[in-house]
Order: sequence, then C-alpha cells, then structure tokens
Amino acid sequence: MRTQYLFKLSIKLCLSFLMIFLFNTNIQAQKISEFPTSNYDFSNPLPQNIDTKIDSIISLLTLEEKVAMCHAQSKFSTPGVARLGIPEIWMSDGPHGVRGEINWDNWGYADWTNDYITAFPALTCLAATFNPKLSNDYGVNVGEEARYRKKDILLGPGVNIYRTPLNGRNFEYMGEDPFLASKMVVPYIKGVQQNGVAACVKHYVLNNQELWRGHINVEVSDRALYEIYLPAFKAAVEEGEAWSIMGAYNQFRGQHTTHHQLLTNKILKEDWAFDGVVISDWGSTHNTNEAALFGLDMEMGTGTDGLTSSTESAYDYYYLANPFLKLLKDKEIDEEVVNDKVRRILKLMFRTNMNPTRNFGRMNNVEHLEVARNIATEGIVLLKNENQFFPINPSKKLTIAVIGENATRPMTIGGGSSELKAKLEVSPLQGLQSRFKNATIIHAMGYSSGPSAYGRVIPSNLDQNKLKQEALEAAAKSDIVLFIGGLNKSYLQDCEGGDRTQFELPFGQDGLIDEILAINKNTGVVLVSGNAVAMPWLSKVQGVMQTWYLGSEAGNAIADIISGDANPSGKLPFSFPVKLKDNAAHSFGELSYPGDSINQYYKEDILVGYRWHDTKKIESLFSFGYGLSYTSFEISDIKTDKKTYTADNQIKISCKVTNTGNSDGAEVIQVYIGKHKSKVKRALKELKGFQKVKLIKGETNEVEVVINAKDLSFYDETVSDWNLEKGTYYVYVGNASNSISEKLKIKIE
Amino acid sequence: MRTQYLFKLSIKLCLSFLMIFLFNTNIQAQKISEFPTSNYDFSNPLPQNIDTKIDSIISLLTLEEKVAMCHAQSKFSTPGVARLGIPEIWMSDGPHGVRGEINWDNWGYADWTNDYITAFPALTCLAATFNPKLSNDYGVNVGEEARYRKKDILLGPGVNIYRTPLNGRNFEYMGEDPFLASKMVVPYIKGVQQNGVAACVKHYVLNNQELWRGHINVEVSDRALYEIYLPAFKAAVEEGEAWSIMGAYNQFRGQHTTHHQLLTNKILKEDWAFDGVVISDWGSTHNTNEAALFGLDMEMGTGTDGLTSSTESAYDYYYLANPFLKLLKDKEIDEEVVNDKVRRILKLMFRTNMNPTRNFGRMNNVEHLEVARNIATEGIVLLKNENQFFPINPSKKLTIAVIGENATRPMTIGGGSSELKAKLEVSPLQGLQSRFKNATIIHAMGYSSGPSAYGRVIPSNLDQNKLKQEALEAAAKSDIVLFIGGLNKSYLQDCEGGDRTQFELPFGQDGLIDEILAINKNTGVVLVSGNAVAMPWLSKVQGVMQTWYLGSEAGNAIADIISGDANPSGKLPFSFPVKLKDNAAHSFGELSYPGDSINQYYKEDILVGYRWHDTKKIESLFSFGYGLSYTSFEISDIKTDKKTYTADNQIKISCKVTNTGNSDGAEVIQVYIGKHKSKVKRALKELKGFQKVKLIKGETNEVEVVINAKDLSFYDETVSDWNLEKGTYYVYVGNASNSISEKLKIKIE
Repeated sequence: MRTQYLFKLSIKLCLSFLMIFLFNTNIQAQKISEFPTSNYDFSNPLPQNIDTKIDSIISLLTLEEKVAMCHAQSKFSTPGVARLGIPEIWMSDGPHGVRGEINWDNWGYADWTNDYITAFPALTCLAATFNPKLSNDYGVNVGEEARYRKKDILLGPGVNIYRTPLNGRNFEYMGEDPFLASKMVVPYIKGVQQNGVAACVKHYVLNNQELWRGHINVEVSDRALYEIYLPAFKAAVEEGEAWSIMGAYNQFRGQHTTHHQLLTNKILKEDWAFDGVVISDWGSTHNTNEAALFGLDMEMGTGTDGLTSSTESAYDYYYLANPFLKLLKDKEIDEEVVNDKVRRILKLMFRTNMNPTRNFGRMNNVEHLEVARNIATEGIVLLKNENQFFPINPSKKLTIAVIGENATRPMTIGGGSSELKAKLEVSPLQGLQSRFKNATIIHAMGYSSGPSAYGRVIPSNLDQNKLKQEALEAAAKSDIVLFIGGLNKSYLQDCEGGDRTQFELPFGQDGLIDEILAINKNTGVVLVSGNAVAMPWLSKVQGVMQTWYLGSEAGNAIADIISGDANPSGKLPFSFPVKLKDNAAHSFGELSYPGDSINQYYKEDILVGYRWHDTKKIESLFSFGYGLSYTSFEISDIKTDKKTYTADNQIKISCKVTNTGNSDGAEVIQVYIGKHKSKVKRALKELKGFQKVKLIKGETNEVEVVINAKDLSFYDETVSDWNLEKGTYYVYVGNASNSISEKLKIKIE
Repeated sequence: MRTQYLFKLSIKLCLSFLMIFLFNTNIQAQKISEFPTSNYDFSNPLPQNIDTKIDSIISLLTLEEKVAMCHAQSKFSTPGVARLGIPEIWMSDGPHGVRGEINWDNWGYADWTNDYITAFPALTCLAATFNPKLSNDYGVNVGEEARYRKKDILLGPGVNIYRTPLNGRNFEYMGEDPFLASKMVVPYIKGVQQNGVAACVKHYVLNNQELWRGHINVEVSDRALYEIYLPAFKAAVEEGEAWSIMGAYNQFRGQHTTHHQLLTNKILKEDWAFDGVVISDWGSTHNTNEAALFGLDMEMGTGTDGLTSSTESAYDYYYLANPFLKLLKDKEIDEEVVNDKVRRILKLMFRTNMNPTRNFGRMNNVEHLEVARNIATEGIVLLKNENQFFPINPSKKLTIAVIGENATRPMTIGGGSSELKAKLEVSPLQGLQSRFKNATIIHAMGYSSGPSAYGRVIPSNLDQNKLKQEALEAAAKSDIVLFIGGLNKSYLQDCEGGDRTQFELPFGQDGLIDEILAINKNTGVVLVSGNAVAMPWLSKVQGVMQTWYLGSEAGNAIADIISGDANPSGKLPFSFPVKLKDNAAHSFGELSYPGDSINQYYKEDILVGYRWHDTKKIESLFSFGYGLSYTSFEISDIKTDKKTYTADNQIKISCKVTNTGNSDGAEVIQVYIGKHKSKVKRALKELKGFQKVKLIKGETNEVEVVINAKDLSFYDETVSDWNLEKGTYYVYVGNASNSISEKLKIKIE
C-alpha cells in the first residue's frame, strides 16, 4: 500500500514538475492546458534545453500519437498532435523549386493558383558551376520559396553518383565525383535550412539508376561504397548538418536501403551521428520490423490505395502505422524505438515549424530570378568552339536559324517529382529573340517528340517530314544555324521512373544535324540535357554547348553565353564517353548495368567516371572538369608548400592564374591526387580540391588549394577503416581532368 | 535640372532610409532584398511603429499588388505579395468551429482528414448562458482550433438581432436583445483574437432573414438601427476591438450593406474608428465604384464561375480586381483609396499571420470538449417542469422511451456555412445511454425528415407510419417518454439560405406528441432548435427543455441536465411567442416580413422581441430571460445606491440572492430599465444589466449590477444623436423579463 502511495505521489510530483517546466507564468484565460504552445520558451535555432523539452513532450504522448507521427496522413504531410498544439509537417518535392500543390490523397495536382514558383537550374548545372557560393545562393533562395509556401521539408538535394549516362534521374544529382558533390551539397543544405526549412538529402543510397529501382539489389564493394557512393551523404550530414535524409528504393546486399541495418543504423546514425529524420521515399518501405528497427523514422507514400473505409484511413495500413503499433503494444518492439523516432521528428520541428524566429520566406522576387540566371549562366559548359563560332555578335544583322524542339519546349514540365509550375520559363528561342534584336531569327522545330507523360511514351502526331523540311529550308537561308536539341523530360529521357534506352540523341536528331550540316556548315549545337549523349557529328559542327535544364531563366542564360554578355566558365561534372561501352558501368555487361532485374553488380568498383577513363586509358569525348572559355588562361608557378607531409598536415597547393585572352572570365583550378605504387588498386588520380577564380582580362591572381593529408586515404577493407598509405603521391594541377598543367610529387610519411 | 536632381536625390535618400529602416544588421547571404522578412522587428501584438512600417511596405507595392490584396484568390484565401514575403490570408467559416477544408475554387469539400474539429454549441446557446466568461472560453478555444488549422480569420461571431423566429440563421446569432448580444460578443472576440486569429463579426447589418437576403432592401428607422441593430456591432468594434467585420447580403435604403456610405464609411469607420478590414460576404459585392468608395476592403466569393481562361483567373473579374485597377490607373479613383484598404489588411496581418509571437493553437483536446460541454450545459433552458418531472434519477431502473429523430440526428451537419466536420458528436440518445446505465432505454425515431441538402428539401423515403407505430409502442411500455424533436439543419429549417415556412414543428411532430400523450402522459419534450416554435401540446406535457444545437458534447450535456448532474441555469435569449402573429415583425403583415421581395419595412421599429410583448401587453409563451432551475432562488434587499443621478453617474443596483431550494444552482439577476412618461415612444423596459450568480444550496450572496446613466439614452432622430432624457425611470429587477421581483424608481437630473 505504502509503495503504491509513494509511486502515485512520485508520478504526481513528476507531473507537477512537468507542468511547471512546460508553463510560463503569463498564461491567459486557459483553464487547463497540457502544452501551452503560446508560451513556449523558444530560441533560435535550438534552445539549449531542447532535448529535455523533447523528452517532456514525449512523456505526454500516447503510443498512438507517437506512431501517427511516424507516417503520412496525406501525400505530403504527416500529422502533428492537435490536442497539444504540435503542428503537422508539410513537405514538397524539390530540388529545383517547390513543386505545385498535390491533392490530399491522390497524385493529381490540386490546381491551386498560388503555387507558381521560380524554377532554378537542375543540380547538374549547379555542379557544373564548380562554385560553392552559388550553391549556397541556390539553397537560400529555393528555401525562401519553400518557406513562403509553408513547407517544412524540401525533398532535396540529390547526390546520387552519376554512374551511367542512361540513368533517367542524373539531372537531379551532382555528377560523378564524390568530392565535387560533397563540396557542392553542403552550402545548398545550409542555405535551405537557414529559412527554417529542412533539406532532405536523397536518395540514400546506391540509387544510381531508375530501371527496376523499386527492387533491384545492388552489390558493391565496401571500398566503392565508402569512397564513391557515401561521401556526399556524409558531407551533407556532418558538414551540412542536414535535418533529414531520404531512403532510396533499391536494395543493398539484400536489404532495402530505406530500412537498413548497416547503412542507416550503423553508418548514418551511429558513425555519422545523424540526429535528423530518415524519411522513406514514396513507397520505399517494405516491412514493419525492418522499418521499425533499421533506422527509418517516417514512412511516406506507401501505396495503400483502396484500403480506406468509413472507419479507417488507408494510412492506418502503413508499415509504421497499425502494424507497428501492434508490435509496440505487444512489447515485441520496445517503446524506446518509437520514442527515438519521435524525438528526431520533434527535433526537426523545433528546427522548422516550431521555430518562431523562422522568416516568412518570399517567392518569385527578382533576386531569385537573378540567382537562377547566375547559376544557369555559370553552369553552361562550352564544349567546342571552332573559329570562335561563339560568341555570336548581337549587333550584327545576321539571319539565324534556330532549329530543334528544345528551343521552345518547356523543361520545367515533366521529369517526375521534380516537375515544377514555373511562374516564368524563358525558352531558348525567347531568350535569343530578346537579345538578338538586330538578327532575323527563323525558328523551326525540325522534329517533334510528343507530349510528356509519366511512365509512358506518347508519340507525336505531327508530320516529322514536314518539320524536317522546314528546318532544312531555314538552315539554307541563314548565316548561322543554332541547333537546340538534346534530351527532354519525357519518360525514358531525363525523367524519373525509367532509364534512357539509348546513348544517342533521340527523335532522329543525329540524322537531322547531318542533313543541316550538308546545307549549312556554319552550325553550332546547343544541347539541353542532364546526361551525356553521343555526338557522331561532333567533328563537323562549329561549336557545342552543354546547357542542362536551366529553369525560369533558361533562355536568357543561354543568350547571355551565346551573345558573349557572359563568358562560359562551367566545367563538366561528369565524363562524356565516346560510346556507351567506354563508360565503366557499361564495360562489364548487363550484370553491371542494368542487372538481371533482381541483382546488379557494380563491377567497375571504385573506377567510376574519369577514374575509369584515366586509369584504363580510355579516352573520353569530353572529360570530367572540362569546359572552354571565350578567353584563355595560363596556370603558372604551381607548387606545394612542402615536399613531405604527415597525416595531420594540410597540403597547400598554390599557383598563379593569368587571364591571357581578350575578355573577362573565370577558370576552375582543379587539383587531383594519385598514389604512386599503391598496395591496392587505385584510380590514377582523384579530385581533392578546386577553386574557381574570376579574372578580368590581363589579370593575374594567386590561387591556393588546401587539402588535408588524411583525405588521401583509401577505405581499407582489410581493417574496415580509412588507411593513409605512406609513400609518394602525385599532385596534378590543371583546368580539367584531362588538362593537367603540372604534375608534382609529394611524400606522406 | 537642379530641381530634378534634388528630386532624384531625395528619392534616393528616402529609399536608403527605407532600406535602413527595414533591415536589421545581421542579414545573411541575401544579395539584394527589398523586404527582409527574416529580420523584421516584430513585437507583440502590434509594434509601436506599426503604422510607419505599414506605410513603408505600401510604398514598395505596385498598384497591381495592392489591388490583388483586396480580393480573393480562392474560395477562402487572398493573395499576399510573394516577392516581398507578405503572406496570404486564410479564412474559415465559423462561428461554432473551424469548417472543413474547401476546394481551391469550388464549393466541394477537399476531403482532407486533418480537419475534424471540436464542434462548440451554437451561439444561441452561448447567449442563453448569460455568462460572458463562458463566451471568452468559447472564443479562446475555437480560436485555438483556428490557429492550429492555420486560419488567420475566423468568420464569426454573428450578432444579427433575432427579429423573427422564421429566420433560418438565428441559431448562429445571439438573440433578440442588443445589450445581451453586446455583452456576450465582446469576450468571444477577445478570446479568438488572443490566438492571433482575427474574429470577423457578421453580418453587418440588418441581415435579419435569409429569404431574399441577396437583394432585399431593408427600410428601418434611424432609431431602431442605432438602438436595436447596431449596438452589438458597436460593442464588437469598440470594446471587442474586432480586427475584421463582414458586410451583409441585403440592402439598406437602396444601397448594398457590404459597401455602404452611411453604415460602413460613416458609422463603422468614422464614428466607431474601426481600424480593421471590412470583408464582403461571399458574393455580396455588387459594384466596383461602391465597393471601392463605400468602405469595403476585401471582396470574397463573388460568383465568376466559368470566366477562368488560360491567361486569366475568374478572380480577375471581381469588382475589386481588374475593374478597380482600371479606375485607379485612369485616376478616376485616388490611389489613397486602395492604400487605405491595404493598410487595413496589413494591419490585420501584423495582428495575425505576421505576428511571430502567436501560438500554435491546438485542437481536439479534452479542455476544448470540457468548455463545449460547460457552455452546452449552462445554455440549456428548462422551460416547464411539472411535478419535478426533471431531473430523472439515473439510479432508478426505469424504462425510458426516447422518441424523435433529433435523438440521433447529427446536428453539426447541414445548416449552411456553419456546417462542421466534428471529430466527435455525442447524440442525445448516446448521452442518455451512457448516463442512464440502470435504465432500459428504448429508442424510436417516430418520424423521419430526410437527408440534409443545401438549398433544397429531400423528403425521407422511410415509412412514416411504421416509424410512428414503433414510437407509440415504445411509449406504451415505458415509465417515461422523452420526446427529442424540434427543428434541424436542413433547408427551410435552421439553415442558411432560406427561412422556415411555418412556426409549428415540422414533420408531423405536434400530432405525434399528441398521440404519445394519449398513451403515456409521463412525457417530457426536449427541443433541439435554434428558433422558437409553437407548442400546442405544452399544457399536456410534464416538462420542456430547450437545448439548441450543442455541438460535440450535445448528448452528454443533455444527459447532464436530465440526470440532474447539472442544474439548468440557461435563460432564453429571445421570446417564444404563443403564435407567430404575436411576434412584432409578423404583426404588420408581409411588408414587414418577409417584404414584397424588393423592399421590407421594419414596422415594429424599436419594439423587437420582449420590448414588443411588454409594451403591447402581448403575453409570450416563454419570455426573454426566462428559464427554470431544479432549485429555487429568492431575490431580496433590492436597492439602488442613490435615488437621483446625473448623466455621468453610475447607477449601482444591488440585491441579495438566496438559493432556497435543495440543490446547488445558478440564477441570472436581470436589470431592466424603463422611462416613465417619455417624450418619445419607448419600450416598457430594456435590459441594461445582468449578473449570473452560482450558489450552493442555502447560500446567499450579494449581487451588484452597475449601469452607466448614459446608457439610458435613446437615439434622438431630431438631433441624430443620443439623448438622455431627464426625469423618472423605473428599475426592474428580476430573473426574467416577465418575472420582476421589484420595481424601483430613480431620477436622472
């Protein structure tokens, strides 16, 4: 009896303490209140006593309420705890802008009119700028739009490694190099999150193709995992301090990556000390026990259509809904498991929708368009420029044929979840028309690909022959031909949910370019794509420009470069192979890509992208890090601060860069390092540092790149840890992976 | 030249000043920014320099942006200015709870699942509590739900005067007495608004019937306008400090009340110094010039369906959209007109969605249910109780027949815009079943009214004869019959958009009650309605209880009263006439009610409700202020502090109240005052003060009611101002308008 009394008393005391703790003194007109949200002691961004507060909130929650917070209540929201004033969480697809509003419980657009936004360039373009400052601008600005749209989580950025040019979703990622992706993803995250909007880094991990993404099992070595596929996620978590991360659809070593003992529990939450929320991809959860125990915190989008009845929501059938609740009630899963998930979710809320100092955001302001245009302009890569074909002088009275569907095709539409309702999208044609007022611009589609549709191809019903004839006629009477083609955002092009089926340009473009060239040799190609393509006509055209998907200001940015108003400074974030077989993933047959529909084996291992080309001496069409300028640069005085380093040292590489041409411009100094005679197989060289430098014509500037000696380690599978080999290393300094000005030798002791 | 230079310089200086003014010093990573929302210097609730801030914001807005803020962008939202981070405004229908989410641009429900809320009792019930503290509880609690639902404006409360029992929307209002409505509306508004949610007092004004509401022109004397129809709105603005008010559908003196020179410009904004936003009712705007110039600030719901094209929204066609913009651009309307509207809208935003100290709200918490139940219980009015029929002892093993459709009919569904998606609605039958566990409860519908539909009547397809037979059989074998009937929320009952077509109970209930009485005389009637009804069976039943629409806790509150767990203390907020003709509005033929479809004349003038019954000596069935208790009270020692007062004096009336019966209870001391020999026609007496006092059995307490002598003024049309007549006044103190304990004489000098 006495024990029971003491127990009750202590419960009462605890509750009293809680109440005193939770309440401020100036409560108004509330008779009873468990959670005085109006008087919470918030401070920005995280109050010091946040963990205590979260624990005290958790102690007020029922098991049902906790479980409810771990799964969706609609396509893009999760429930709060209404009775306690804990808000719902609202998310939006990203990463190139805030997606249009989707219906509560089906995939249709809600047809609101307040969700037209600024479309920023695709992340491949951002990566091509090699400019982390622009990445921060991107994050700040897209985050402001998310905040204005009242989104608490923006589903992006994506940092899956570019492994094959056929992956339909490469355009949403940051290229083939883990170092570049790491350096570019961190400022984006910080930018988004300074608005009180969580970034959600995706898709964790090894989701490197869209084909069979829902079930394919990836087999890859620990070394490739740690050296190639994880680093950008690690940087996002450890340096970017991302508040959420999204699991991927695929499996790894027989376990779905969304709930994965090694990837999520061990590496992400234990090794990297991730304190945010692991969110499933929409429909990537497959099992209650694994979801509960292998690190998933929030289940979204699981298809339970048709299960809604008058008394139950389809969401009750989610793996982390009723089935999870039952296991908790039956004590088959410890309540601390759900507490940990809710703790993470509440922490995310204190950082976002429960942070009263967050701003209001803003949207469609000129500054956002300026940033979008800056990124677009800096990301465009000039690949070829015979006889100074580019820039084209806008003051001349030229007749210019603009040929190709991509001159006018809206590229914010389609592509899957990254589709946007852009308030403005300037097409390449519009951009050229507005800049080249003195020119006579003749436009001809040349071909037609048909409308975009998700998951299927709808052929065009236009007369392709007529389109081609119009294009050839336009080419015949023009001084210059600009062929603006490439891929688009339709299924089986650059689009989620499927991979490309060919490396060549689709829709007969290669043939069309040949026919144009036969009529007018003064032809340049403007490629709009998120992937490398074959270029059988390369030697015959005067110029080639890789322009990605550029968002709202696409046409203006392209006109900026073509007119010479801006000098191209973009560098390729992935290699363009001559032919598909030259790509590492495609060198090992179908088991390597795309797999046998059940398993796939990353046989190229660590030799992804330029690592493959360099090491195997397979020349690429255009190399990683490559990109031309209208001016020329000289790199000189290349040196390291010392010749010998220890593990704790920083290696300082410096050089002088001079703009030796006739216009202002920017160059990217790239530092690659390779081990001389390693005890393990290694890539010839790997990017370890870069610096973009802007120089007016004639200007010289010193550039210093600092590398931690530790970062030359390889992942040693024999000890399951990083290993800094002693011995000789080569430092390659240049302006592209295939354009090295000097190779220095250093030693690690 | 020099002048121009100085002009430019001063513009630059002004802009610089603005930028310094708007910015804080700690701006991060924003290159250009016109409106640094993240760094605004907010303070709660209105910063002192708010007007300066608002002006500086207005100076940044384009004419198009200003105009856009003055009209809807969807059914329930208005646009912000995205580029500057000015949020949208979101509204919800009230006043009894926060309505379910409606589609963006049609009236269908959006079928969200996060919008099930607490349903509070109808405002007639709140008025019947005669308890302003409960009104504040109501406001605080419904405001918390609005806040949780992210609503910035709650469309309510309504204070249109109860003029006829046929008005389909009386249930949303606060009765027939301007003093009672004034005292009850103020704490509601303050309660809502303390959550950072604007109350929107409606419908301003003279919208006293639903029939022909969209166009009927009301003709009423200045005196009745000022003394009867305006006071509650005046109190809402001057004492409640309401942040918004809603125009009505009808006309007054040939001008639509939503944009009205006298009502809105002169009385509301000039005389009362209203600094909030005048919002149209949905579709109550009729003319651009009047809307612009006669005080409307925000146009909502104008029907422009079908006008949306690919380039224009239907909302562009609103009177305060493109047509307004054109008049502004053509300088036919001065820009200061739109500036004033935007200034008011921005002020509302600083009070709501731009106030960062607002709370998160909460929803569906037990405290909200408790408040809903308290109000419901205190609002129920016991009208008749022969032989202590009520309370019914729950410990007895009785057989109770519960007959009537309203025993089980959900009353949060239907009724028009006040319809709710209640998370919980306990029906009267459920409430009784849960409280009367020892009794055998037999339920029979008795009749069926058919389903609710907006704007049309759908008859029931059930066999009415069979339903009646089942009811009579139930009555025959029961100790007690509880007939739970009344009106419902269907069209032509208590429902927006139409008036009742008869004063009698519908669906054959009178006949059914008679037949039940022929079988079982031990019958009590529980009326669920928001209006007075005829009671031809009154003398034959044992008890009658008026229970209104009680929301989520309806059945529990009814069971509280019937079981005696709670002692009834509600008082009628309007008179029940014996027959319709006894009601003032109905005494003057159709031109008085409902009018000739074009005009209507309020011929009863100031003699509304009990003023009519008292003055014309027409006995009512149940009088204003009337309501029984299970205990009895004695009012004694009634006195005034003085015999003679001057205009500036307060009149203090005091008395002792003793609970002389056998249970705890509450009584409402009511003070009415009438002028002896006025120079103008006056009501015999008017409510000027009241006080609810709770007394345990045997307890005596002193009650003091304080009245400002000025409040005895009448509105003198000869001088268009209030006039405090000197001379003798009678002070009536009692517990109902027809139950006066003592009549005292005082003098005003």
